[in-house]
Amino acid sequence: MTNKQQILARRPVGMPDKDTWTLTETEVPALEDGQVLIRNEYISLDPAMRGWINDARSYIPPVELGEVMRAGTVGKVVKANNHPKYKEGDVLTGWGGVQEYSVTDGTGYYPVDTSLAPMPTYIGTLGMPGMTAYFGILEVGKIKEGDVVVVSGAAGAVGSVVGQVAKIKGCRVIGIAGGLEKCKYVVEELGFDACIDYKNNDVSAGLKEYCPKGLDVYFDNVGGDILDACLARLKMHARIVICGAISQYNNKENVQGPKNYLSLLVNRATMQGMVVMDYAPKYREAAMQMGMWMMEGKLKSREDIYEGIGNFHETFRRLFSGEKKGKLVLKVK
Amino acid sequence: MTNKQQILARRPVGMPDKDTWTLTETEVPALEDGQVLIRNEYISLDPAMRGWINDARSYIPPVELGEVMRAGTVGKVVKANNHPKYKEGDVLTGWGGVQEYSVTDGTGYYPVDTSLAPMPTYIGTLGMPGMTAYFGILEVGKIKEGDVVVVSGAAGAVGSVVGQVAKIKGCRVIGIAGGLEKCKYVVEELGFDACIDYKNNDVSAGLKEYCPKGLDVYFDNVGGDILDACLARLKMHARIVICGAISQYNNKENVQGPKNYLSLLVNRATMQGMVVMDYAPKYREAAMQMGMWMMEGKLKSREDIYEGIGNFHETFRRLFSGEKKGKLVLKVK
Repeated sequence: MTNKQQILARRPVGMPDKDTWTLTETEVPALEDGQVLIRNEYISLDPAMRGWINDARSYIPPVELGEVMRAGTVGKVVKANNHPKYKEGDVLTGWGGVQEYSVTDGTGYYPVDTSLAPMPTYIGTLGMPGMTAYFGILEVGKIKEGDVVVVSGAAGAVGSVVGQVAKIKGCRVIGIAGGLEKCKYVVEELGFDACIDYKNNDVSAGLKEYCPKGLDVYFDNVGGDILDACLARLKMHARIVICGAISQYNNKENVQGPKNYLSLLVNRATMQGMVVMDYAPKYREAAMQMGMWMMEGKLKSREDIYEGIGNFHETFRRLFSGEKKGKLVLKVK
Repeated sequence: MTNKQQILARRPVGMPDKDTWTLTETEVPALEDGQVLIRNEYISLDPAMRGWINDARSYIPPVELGEVMRAGTVGKVVKANNHPKYKEGDVLTGWGGVQEYSVTDGTGYYPVDTSLAPMPTYIGTLGMPGMTAYFGILEVGKIKEGDVVVVSGAAGAVGSVVGQVAKIKGCRVIGIAGGLEKCKYVVEELGFDACIDYKNNDVSAGLKEYCPKGLDVYFDNVGGDILDACLARLKMHARIVICGAISQYNNKENVQGPKNYLSLLVNRATMQGMVVMDYAPKYREAAMQMGMWMMEGKLKSREDIYEGIGNFHETFRRLFSGEKKGKLVLKVK
């Protein structure tokens, strides 16, 4: 049995291109005692993956050249060799990587219940992006009823959940997204109070209009000019959650630092970084809460699914071009 | 009786020059019922004053053109007209401004005891700079025993107190200051563990040497490249206290944003701004604690005193050129 894999072939400078990864085929190894073979069905595509292929100290080690590209996955156990917990047919989510099959002793994998939500949701709203949103806005953003919350990447996997959770908690929520269609989706489908289309409108003017008295929490997925625009509109004791900086990940030169950071001083505000892995002990609790909100219709999830492991690079590209609707997912076959 | 005053004459672009303020002479007005006349003896010169003369929204309103330049002062009551609390001879500290005499009902003034510390100390270590240091490092920096603390502007009015308080609390303290003499003072007189001379040495290399495992708290008085160098050496859950950015106050163009701010994400770190006025209800308690440390010889204070209200601009300039030793003070006459 063969296993198609996307292997990191070279470290990109700037935007990854078609030579960054190579599609290879290897034999699936025989299972050792206590291992399972998982057929990966869906692969999660996330902006953070861009960081993992830099040769730099970060919150996890970089993917090495020649290694299978790291990715979150959801898949089905097709063979088990005396595994203490998992048997054939079980559906597991974990770090399967960009490949058709994974062999594992189960470390870092969690079983999921596909009768409650479809598989792709477990790498989206009930997976890493959803967890990031949930803990980021609640534990780092420390939102409370009545807060004015602004979130960038509002139509994306993290931002869409951030805004919906903030609405559930009684906040006024303003999204920032690229294009009229995404903004319409954010307001009409997800129930945000407003959404600023940064591709066609001035973000500072939009913030002035929708947050005339300033913002209490800004959840930042993008960095760059949008972070600066939000810094300029902080209320006293505002909190900025630094979750990501998609506008900066493919920079060939220096990252653009927030030139308005002294607004933190003027407004006694806080800018705090987060990494979702820190909250792993509470994932289950969060997934139960979010699953409940989904069943009640308060939390909506949308995946944009592309097909074929050979199309990994072409699909990955969409993370940065914005040509996607919701959580970006690759269906293996 | 006449009153010499330094009046804000024009808003500077970049570094203030000799035309920014005008020295004028007016009559001291007659006292109304409940007012006192204070002869200002010492005027505090602080980097924050640069911000107060910009026409921009900040934590306090800007000084208007034609107004007396705002400044902290310490002085003696020379006349009292039925004041409920203060009488002739009392020594008060408050916002007297850059002028010989102030007339006030006492709002915002506090009496000081010159038998415990000399007058200039009440606008230094026991005044606004000392309070900034005390609350900044304890309440925002949240230092605990064993922390590695880095402070810029280490020989200055705020930085010198930050480092000494951190030493008292059992931290390892590394200063950053400009020039060999200041660094010697910081280590030999103030007892810091080390001091990096940013004018003659590479700050990143110095941090690597003195904080090989990274830093827990960085107290930032300067911004710019030094802030970036410190961001690159954060330990997990590190705290950055944004107290000021003296390297940026006279920029004619944009402030230089910290391009390494994503280190906050990687290290789950926090960058928080502070303004000392927020701690006013606790000034007394802090002054008592710091006064005690001074008596015990654990906290040293040094003022660099220049003379003559006419020399205000020439003295002010030293804040930014670094030609000063400790807290910069102007003796009125």
